[in-house]
Amino acid sequence: MLVNRRKVRIEWGDCDPAGIVYFPRYFQHFDNATVGLFEAATGRKKIEMAGENDMAGIPTVNIRARFIIPSRYGDDVVIESQVTDFRRSSFDVQHKLFRGKELAAECLETRVWTVRDPKSPGGLKSAPVPQGIKDRFAAAKQKRAKTPS
Amino acid sequence: MLVNRRKVRIEWGDCDPAGIVYFPRYFQHFDNATVGLFEAATGRKKIEMAGENDMAGIPTVNIRARFIIPSRYGDDVVIESQVTDFRRSSFDVQHKLFRGKELAAECLETRVWTVRDPKSPGGLKSAPVPQGIKDRFAAAKQKRAKTPS
Amino acid sequence: MLVNRRKVRIEWGDCDPAGIVYFPRYFQHFDNATVGLFEAATGRKKIEMAGENDMAGIPTVNIRARFIIPSRYGDDVVIESQVTDFRRSSFDVQHKLFRGKELAAECLETRVWTVRDPKSPGGLKSAPVPQGIKDRFAAAKQKRAKTPS
Amino acid sequence: MLVNRRKVRIEWGDCDPAGIVYFPRYFQHFDNATVGLFEAATGRKKIEMAGENDMAGIPTVNIRARFIIPSRYGDDVVIESQVTDFRRSSFDVQHKLFRGKELAAECLETRVWTVRDPKSPGGLKSAPVPQGIKDRFAAAKQKRAKTPS
Repeated sequence: MLVNRRKVRIEWGDCDPAGIVYFPRYFQHFDNATVGLFEAATGRKKIEMAGENDMAGIPTVNIRARFIIPSRYGDDVVIESQVTDFRRSSFDVQHKLFRGKELAAECLETRVWTVRDPKSPGGLKSAPVPQGIKDRFAAAKQKRAKTPS
Repeated sequence: MLVNRRKVRIEWGDCDPAGIVYFPRYFQHFDNATVGLFEAATGRKKIEMAGENDMAGIPTVNIRARFIIPSRYGDDVVIESQVTDFRRSSFDVQHKLFRGKELAAECLETRVWTVRDPKSPGGLKSAPVPQGIKDRFAAAKQKRAKTPS
Repeated sequence: MLVNRRKVRIEWGDCDPAGIVYFPRYFQHFDNATVGLFEAATGRKKIEMAGENDMAGIPTVNIRARFIIPSRYGDDVVIESQVTDFRRSSFDVQHKLFRGKELAAECLETRVWTVRDPKSPGGLKSAPVPQGIKDRFAAAKQKRAKTPS
Repeated sequence: MLVNRRKVRIEWGDCDPAGIVYFPRYFQHFDNATVGLFEAATGRKKIEMAGENDMAGIPTVNIRARFIIPSRYGDDVVIESQVTDFRRSSFDVQHKLFRGKELAAECLETRVWTVRDPKSPGGLKSAPVPQGIKDRFAAAKQKRAKTPS
């Protein structure tokens, strides 16, 4: 599968009074990295994927993360992201965040492809991941791309 | 162990273009709930615990969450939080987020009591959870308190 | 005009490595306070106002703020909010944030009532503020209400 | 004065249920841009400036902004930032945010150089901007640099 690498600057506003990243902000960076991974694989922005596939979002339903080494503002870290499993309407995305050569954090997200549904809570329902999206990931396999950060 | 209940209004700014909570914001609410739980158990604000114990923070090192039912802006949800295990310098906090009677999300955080250390990355090192803190939790057992939201 | 008062706890995650509120978070609190003001005046949640009036949002087009006294995590502050002027499709909201009796920050937002417009940038266009909304504010004048935080 | 240009990708998590940037997030981007401007001018990261000058932060005391054209997730915008005035301990930073060639937003921040002060609220007090910092800005004048985003 495609592994996408993304450089991220840890910003002042990412950090808390202890001077290290406030952990919910890691999840924003991981979420951005998932979007970047899809863009690298498909050549389409998320907003274009949404428009073309009537997709409402790819919400996370299950997530786990380990924060191994703290990062501070001014640190330049790298997030390596890949889809580790595509199922019918759900899929897993793995992120590894490196400070230099050290693994500083890792995360595994399970996400669901969703479309609008006026009848359900939040107005969303799951739907199969379009085959065209899966095909692009398969075609991009082994390729290492760097998105515009 | 003390179970602390906390009412949270889901705000417009918590939500994403799909109209539901952007999942990193759940972790801010869970983090606030952990702080509220400690305040309910000890009668001390986090900033007071920090000052009195030379504590730098209680960073999360391991976390997992399940998002079961999406929430939208304007929803009033309740987070029930408890410490499920105290070890020497680490401990587990469990959160259950309810929309009405339905479990909408749950989260398990492993956190570490940390103090300043000029020699380590981020300037932090783990330290034993003060016995006084553990005692307060033990004394508060079974008690259900509601923090000032 | 109605002045709405709202208690806000400053949280750990609102604060930066200097230990004080990271200023963009003040604007989230002010935005929440604007929503609370409308709810107090109209008895309707924002999501209900949106559904009933085909409203897409009330984006801020102009804003100014003064941060006078810093706040730290654990501080309980009060935000007093009021609409100071209603025009055809835009209006001004003023917020005063107090730490105890001291004015710690103030903000003036100019916002626009917007509806969906597939033809414009962002798919939004301005529209007149519904008369029913203005009437509710006029009826609520002088009344001091406290929203559920 | 140095004008620093910075490319910013508007992310899903920057946007609200109306599908456009939630305005408090603009201020995070502007804050990051101020840090980037200082880094471009001085060759030092903010954390290095803090360590070398005993600086605690450069909090914003006064701010105004105009949001002219909304941006949506997936938009690539450019922020041009410059210090428009250095006084003794305060200074003004101006940001212009462009979508393509169009000015989409602008912001003027007044900030204060602060150092630790155990005696004042928030433990901070203003201090003169170090002459070395001002000199670097003067030396960099007219130069257009691009920070690593």
